[in-house]
Amino acid sequence: MAKRIGGQTAPMGRGRSVEAWASAVCTKAGDGPLGNLFDAVHADETMGEDNWEKAEMRLFLDAVERCLEKAGKESRDIRMLLGGDLLNQLMASSFAVRELGIPFLGLFGACSAMSESLALAAMIAEGGSADRLLCVASSHFCTAERQFRFPLEMGTQRPPSAQWTVTGAGAVMVCGQEAASASKPFITHVTVGKPIDLGVTDAANMGAAMAPAAADTLYQHLMDTSRTPSDYDLIATGDLGMVGSALLKELMSDKGMPLRERHYMDCGLAIFSPEQDAHAGGSGCGCSASVLCADLLPRLQKGKIDRLLFMATGALMSTVSSNEGESIPSVAHAVVIERPEGV
Amino acid sequence: MAKRIGGQTAPMGRGRSVEAWASAVCTKAGDGPLGNLFDAVHADETMGEDNWEKAEMRLFLDAVERCLEKAGKESRDIRMLLGGDLLNQLMASSFAVRELGIPFLGLFGACSAMSESLALAAMIAEGGSADRLLCVASSHFCTAERQFRFPLEMGTQRPPSAQWTVTGAGAVMVCGQEAASASKPFITHVTVGKPIDLGVTDAANMGAAMAPAAADTLYQHLMDTSRTPSDYDLIATGDLGMVGSALLKELMSDKGMPLRERHYMDCGLAIFSPEQDAHAGGSGCGCSASVLCADLLPRLQKGKIDRLLFMATGALMSTVSSNEGESIPSVAHAVVIERPEGV
Repeated sequence: MAKRIGGQTAPMGRGRSVEAWASAVCTKAGDGPLGNLFDAVHADETMGEDNWEKAEMRLFLDAVERCLEKAGKESRDIRMLLGGDLLNQLMASSFAVRELGIPFLGLFGACSAMSESLALAAMIAEGGSADRLLCVASSHFCTAERQFRFPLEMGTQRPPSAQWTVTGAGAVMVCGQEAASASKPFITHVTVGKPIDLGVTDAANMGAAMAPAAADTLYQHLMDTSRTPSDYDLIATGDLGMVGSALLKELMSDKGMPLRERHYMDCGLAIFSPEQDAHAGGSGCGCSASVLCADLLPRLQKGKIDRLLFMATGALMSTVSSNEGESIPSVAHAVVIERPEGV
Repeated sequence: MAKRIGGQTAPMGRGRSVEAWASAVCTKAGDGPLGNLFDAVHADETMGEDNWEKAEMRLFLDAVERCLEKAGKESRDIRMLLGGDLLNQLMASSFAVRELGIPFLGLFGACSAMSESLALAAMIAEGGSADRLLCVASSHFCTAERQFRFPLEMGTQRPPSAQWTVTGAGAVMVCGQEAASASKPFITHVTVGKPIDLGVTDAANMGAAMAPAAADTLYQHLMDTSRTPSDYDLIATGDLGMVGSALLKELMSDKGMPLRERHYMDCGLAIFSPEQDAHAGGSGCGCSASVLCADLLPRLQKGKIDRLLFMATGALMSTVSSNEGESIPSVAHAVVIERPEGV
């Protein structure tokens, strides 16, 4: 059993390996700066389906199938799937897993889904309750716009602080001691975050709502582990975008833990170029999930970075809460992943 | 580390104790057969708030606060809260935990939330990542009707197969080895279920949609553990109601594992009497959560039953999926809880 440390952080034994991963996106992300890193770029945003929700489900399934294939495994080899998306009642995840026949734990943490699922999978593997788990998260621009904002057909103008929901998915296979390889990256710590709400009510400015949660979890993680930001080759936030990233840097500087430019990135800023008219950057569960699988895990695997702190962030608002004048509680979970030994 | 067994079931070490629990409901459940067993029965369904969602959040908080008080603990003693409700984006859970300041893992498994959270908490405690966790689930008749069916003001007639969402919440504190008492019930196994969908499309007949998932998980659990239903003093399903319970019994008989009347109950049938005009019975995350805390855990604590299989069931449909003509995938997770030794 792992040695306990204080605060919100749980250290993992060395066997929680990140065994395989895959990403699938549609054109807009495929046209972005990371375009050639994704495992699949689909030109058809409907994925051949007759509605957007099913299209998102297909992307979710595509990421899972590619991940299974890379690992040389099948659905029946997976003990549990931890998945989440942004849709009411997790429509994409639930309907995808129905086709896979894998025991399913549905998660909702808004855009924090990928780090929530990784944190849970690592903690479950740590206890030996499952030796091979899949962590999956997806989002789709068209399902998210319809659900949270306006019908696309209205052509509503977006404010500069708005982010563009990534149409994409990522799937990561986490293995416990018995099923793990020494030659793969492994999870060393997870820090589960608290919902934080500093009163932002603008649903078109989620970066501002999420930044305080990201700062809280990151600061707590650094205190728990007696580390500083420079102990990480890379700290990657999920989808704070332009507004939220700037706020996070400010908040961390205020706490005396400044984030240096070359040690910090935001997946929402990495996935689109300024020319792509995505305003403040990418967002959605699929943003951090696809960037993790396309860019970050390969960098660890190749030994280009030694230690990554991956922290997806989620804005826990609903259309109902926004209509009722509520502010937006947010949450961020951090997962530390290290490169394989000998790479 | 626990010895692994096959299939979907993970055995827990003996330290995963169910340390404290509390329930809070509103009048209709308070007027039912279990009325005097709940920790709190609130006459005002608004809980003093100005909308139903906040009322549900208050019920969630009330259950948590009563559970903490019984255990002699405070929010800061809790390492993680695993919570879920039926609302889009988990509005009740997210907004409640914002007030508590506890690290939060949001779950969506529809009405299976209580067994999903117990299963996860036990597996996390098993690995030593957290020694004291809260599992919480809530539902509210008025939030659920508005979200999934019709505005209450319409006075829409309900078919006989419809169930009545329980306005209530339950909170359970699960402890790992270091924080556990020998004098409390403990979790011995968890079985995570697969989404099952046999094609039911009627959102007013969730019992029929959920029964095959319940049968699948229960049968898998019995195969994994080489047990029969009579190895349990009580098998309690979450909210199959009249239609779903009858179907589960039929399905289990077909599989050669009949459920005997005195060893089986459904929380949805226990919480309301036929005179209360709840049609096919109670439903909602708060149904099984409040019955577990008010009736089932006290029976284990008093030694009236030795071994309980608690299996909340969830219908993973959304209004969007129903409108798109989709059938209803469902899921059920089972948790085995045994009475303390020496009781």
